[in-house]
Amino acid sequence: MASIKPSVPKGTRDFSPAEMVKRNYIFDTIKSVFRKYGYQQIETPTMENSSTLMGKYGEEGDKLIFKVLDSGDYISNIKQQYDVFLPILTKLTNNAFKAANIPGNEADREYWTNTGETFSVVKQKWIAKEIDLPELLRLLEINLKVLNINPDDLGLVPTELGFESKKTTSAISEKALRYDLTVPFARYVVQHQNEITFPFKRFQVQPVWRADRPQRGRYREFYQCDADVVGSDSLLNEAEFILIYDEALTKLGLKDFSIKINNRKILSGIAQVIDKADNIIDLTVAIDKLDKIGLDGVIKELLEKGFTDADIDKLKPVILLEGNNTEKLASLREALAQSEIGLKGCDEIETVFGYIERCPLQTAKLELDITLARGLNYYTGAIFEVKTNEVNMGSIGGGGRYDDLTGMFGLKGLTGAGISFGADRIYDVLEELNLFPADSNQTTQVLICNFDKDGELYSLPLLQELRRNNINTELYPAGAKIKKQMDYANNKNIPYVVVIGGDEIQTSLLTFKDMTSGVQEKLTADEIVAKLIQ
Amino acid sequence: MASIKPSVPKGTRDFSPAEMVKRNYIFDTIKSVFRKYGYQQIETPTMENSSTLMGKYGEEGDKLIFKVLDSGDYISNIKQQYDVFLPILTKLTNNAFKAANIPGNEADREYWTNTGETFSVVKQKWIAKEIDLPELLRLLEINLKVLNINPDDLGLVPTELGFESKKTTSAISEKALRYDLTVPFARYVVQHQNEITFPFKRFQVQPVWRADRPQRGRYREFYQCDADVVGSDSLLNEAEFILIYDEALTKLGLKDFSIKINNRKILSGIAQVIDKADNIIDLTVAIDKLDKIGLDGVIKELLEKGFTDADIDKLKPVILLEGNNTEKLASLREALAQSEIGLKGCDEIETVFGYIERCPLQTAKLELDITLARGLNYYTGAIFEVKTNEVNMGSIGGGGRYDDLTGMFGLKGLTGAGISFGADRIYDVLEELNLFPADSNQTTQVLICNFDKDGELYSLPLLQELRRNNINTELYPAGAKIKKQMDYANNKNIPYVVVIGGDEIQTSLLTFKDMTSGVQEKLTADEIVAKLIQ
Repeated sequence: MASIKPSVPKGTRDFSPAEMVKRNYIFDTIKSVFRKYGYQQIETPTMENSSTLMGKYGEEGDKLIFKVLDSGDYISNIKQQYDVFLPILTKLTNNAFKAANIPGNEADREYWTNTGETFSVVKQKWIAKEIDLPELLRLLEINLKVLNINPDDLGLVPTELGFESKKTTSAISEKALRYDLTVPFARYVVQHQNEITFPFKRFQVQPVWRADRPQRGRYREFYQCDADVVGSDSLLNEAEFILIYDEALTKLGLKDFSIKINNRKILSGIAQVIDKADNIIDLTVAIDKLDKIGLDGVIKELLEKGFTDADIDKLKPVILLEGNNTEKLASLREALAQSEIGLKGCDEIETVFGYIERCPLQTAKLELDITLARGLNYYTGAIFEVKTNEVNMGSIGGGGRYDDLTGMFGLKGLTGAGISFGADRIYDVLEELNLFPADSNQTTQVLICNFDKDGELYSLPLLQELRRNNINTELYPAGAKIKKQMDYANNKNIPYVVVIGGDEIQTSLLTFKDMTSGVQEKLTADEIVAKLIQ
Repeated sequence: MASIKPSVPKGTRDFSPAEMVKRNYIFDTIKSVFRKYGYQQIETPTMENSSTLMGKYGEEGDKLIFKVLDSGDYISNIKQQYDVFLPILTKLTNNAFKAANIPGNEADREYWTNTGETFSVVKQKWIAKEIDLPELLRLLEINLKVLNINPDDLGLVPTELGFESKKTTSAISEKALRYDLTVPFARYVVQHQNEITFPFKRFQVQPVWRADRPQRGRYREFYQCDADVVGSDSLLNEAEFILIYDEALTKLGLKDFSIKINNRKILSGIAQVIDKADNIIDLTVAIDKLDKIGLDGVIKELLEKGFTDADIDKLKPVILLEGNNTEKLASLREALAQSEIGLKGCDEIETVFGYIERCPLQTAKLELDITLARGLNYYTGAIFEVKTNEVNMGSIGGGGRYDDLTGMFGLKGLTGAGISFGADRIYDVLEELNLFPADSNQTTQVLICNFDKDGELYSLPLLQELRRNNINTELYPAGAKIKKQMDYANNKNIPYVVVIGGDEIQTSLLTFKDMTSGVQEKLTADEIVAKLIQ
């Protein structure tokens, strides 16, 4: 083992110091904007009860949830479980032969006695604590299955044994890793509803885990970065999400990006006016692909799904909506004149636009895009998606309004809206556009180099003084060649180096080197401090 | 399920907004000090390969590691596994009868045919994808066990089947949750050794998981906060760890705390001079308890462990070392005069004290404490422990020097030293001493209240202006009673409220209320901005 180079599980990553500085830059920027808009941070546990997560992400999603074995539970409770299972095992050992209702010849009896004894063996192992609970359940369950014995025939309550496969699984694994931040947030709101002041504006930046097949840009562990408000149906929230995207991405240095907005009610209206309310999913799935497959592709798909030529004629002007947002809205109102819900969607969008007119965006282009159908089953009002126009990259953010977030945990009637930043993609965008700042207060600013113990000791007051002025400073421990110390400064991207040798100690004039320009000068310790804190 | 109030797994916690502000305050303070001293942040994945973690924490520790099921692996690879296992299953079905070497009467043959068919059933289930890989392995393994068939007799390579229990376990669970930050750090250093510039000074603040029995102050998920340096044997590092503790805890407001220091070499020396080098563990375990059980208790324990009265006579003056650090060191040198390693330990401590004399501590008391034996098997040089003297609380930090951190992964000869802050305990200390700052840039500073849509719209320019000046500001959405808005401000501890009603709109004089003092005044929007950014 010692000779195998260690690695991380596939789909997971180490983050090196240089990466951490950049990741912190992104997260700190977004967090500061969340806070500026009144969002408060929470954190939820990495593990949730399986019952909290299962059934919330569809069948495919459930399969991608990482389950955690209950190692701790059965270890800490082993004595208690031993007590519970011992009488059951005794009963089994005594009854197995009787219960196995097979023809009564001697050979069979002999066999069954032997087989029956496998229960004794299991029991001995359990008493000797050689096996743990999952192993015990497994051995018992299979013994009974192979012998074709119905646990009921043993006069035991099946639940007592936990023999049903589902029960066994949940006995082994009651916990799972967080799959997203939304379901834990819903769980949090319901659990803490009496301590929370609504509207509750929370943000959360934590990793999530998905047992997906890893590929370029898709990881099994990745950070989500979410802000949600629950308990407020005001469209001011939608407007503020647009402002948050605008401010955060502007701060991060993006110069050209679009915030696309749609409204689920408009999509419902469109389906309604062509009398295809029941086919809204087919409709939106098709028009969502306009970018990729073009109008002809969309029409082809709609015809395949049973839409008529007449439907297509009505849909075309809606799908190909042109002009600025105001013109698009006007056309939409015309097309949706017969749909109350469609017009309601237009009103909502218009209200949001009204807020934004009064709070002009710094950089973002706000675009009404009715082909946007992201997470349709989930969202009930606004739908957002953010894309950079500078780099070819999928969406770097998205969100929308949902009714009844907490209904899954029995708390009805709470409406909410939320957005998410795609941190990994934003990282790639900033990297490609070279937008990460060159200097950071997270890295060392000054390295003090020396030739020997004398230089090291002489350095200590300067080291203290720089640190007292909150300048990140390191003193290279005595005994290394100056070349090695310089390499250290270069590899760590330390911008300034002070060299203290015999001359410097004698004259009190220290060698101060700007590593970027290469310029070197002789300065007193005080001059160096003054230069660096300016 | 909907009616069951959701909860978190035992031993885990949600952190509310108020708690997050306080936790961030602690972590941000410690991180800023780590950075000031040249330590760089890394992050490692939550899950490590089981082989990375297992066997590193002793038998008891291994049991407390949370194992993660490989749900993802066998789902994404199900087709591939199906292909691998199908021929094996066919072989099994055909050979089971032949391989079961039992007396050949008809009834037996009949039984075995039936039993053999359980393999067919398993095979059918596998083909129908009704069972997954762990379930398949389980059924096969138990079938063979019950039938007393040795897999070897089937002409199959056992590893091909993964039938050994250990193999099955590792097929189900190849990953586990990080148990501490030290082993992942060692793994990181070995894996990335070619990218790292040594000495490598890294810090890491991430949660870890232990399947321990939860109790007051002991959690199954908790953050560790570690700084380590590898690749430098300079005692400057030890001195800087003391300075880091001093600066971070001073910044956090602690007024009276002790940094205790010892050295493993001194403990070795003590054992050596009484000729009990082999009993060093017994010796140090006993004297480590001096605080709790007193000198008589320590002597009793030592006598029980086979130490003689003569040993005790020699030990007494060492255990009861008195005076200041210089006096203690002098006494120790005398007592350890015959032990080379003991004197080396004294030299090391003296060197560290020498650095600290030149870089005086702000608050901490530095105490030589030879009863300190924390993590003895691990540390090879300095041993640290930090305690507050203001509150009755266990240690709030600890660490030391260790040789060969990375030896477990095959990279020999790297020496290192590290410290850790006990964040949860520091939280409790600050809470008890009321040391958390009242104001925070993480919370909302101003709430703008309004009576209706007009007030809401009128508020927007002020809202924008305050945010432009980096003041965290919220506008309460129109339509709520003013009482509800004030409650919101109070519950969120928002220090300032601006109220905008009809009068305010008409006169342009807004009501500005200091929520702490209760003082209310009429100010223009510009005056409010000026007041808040000063």
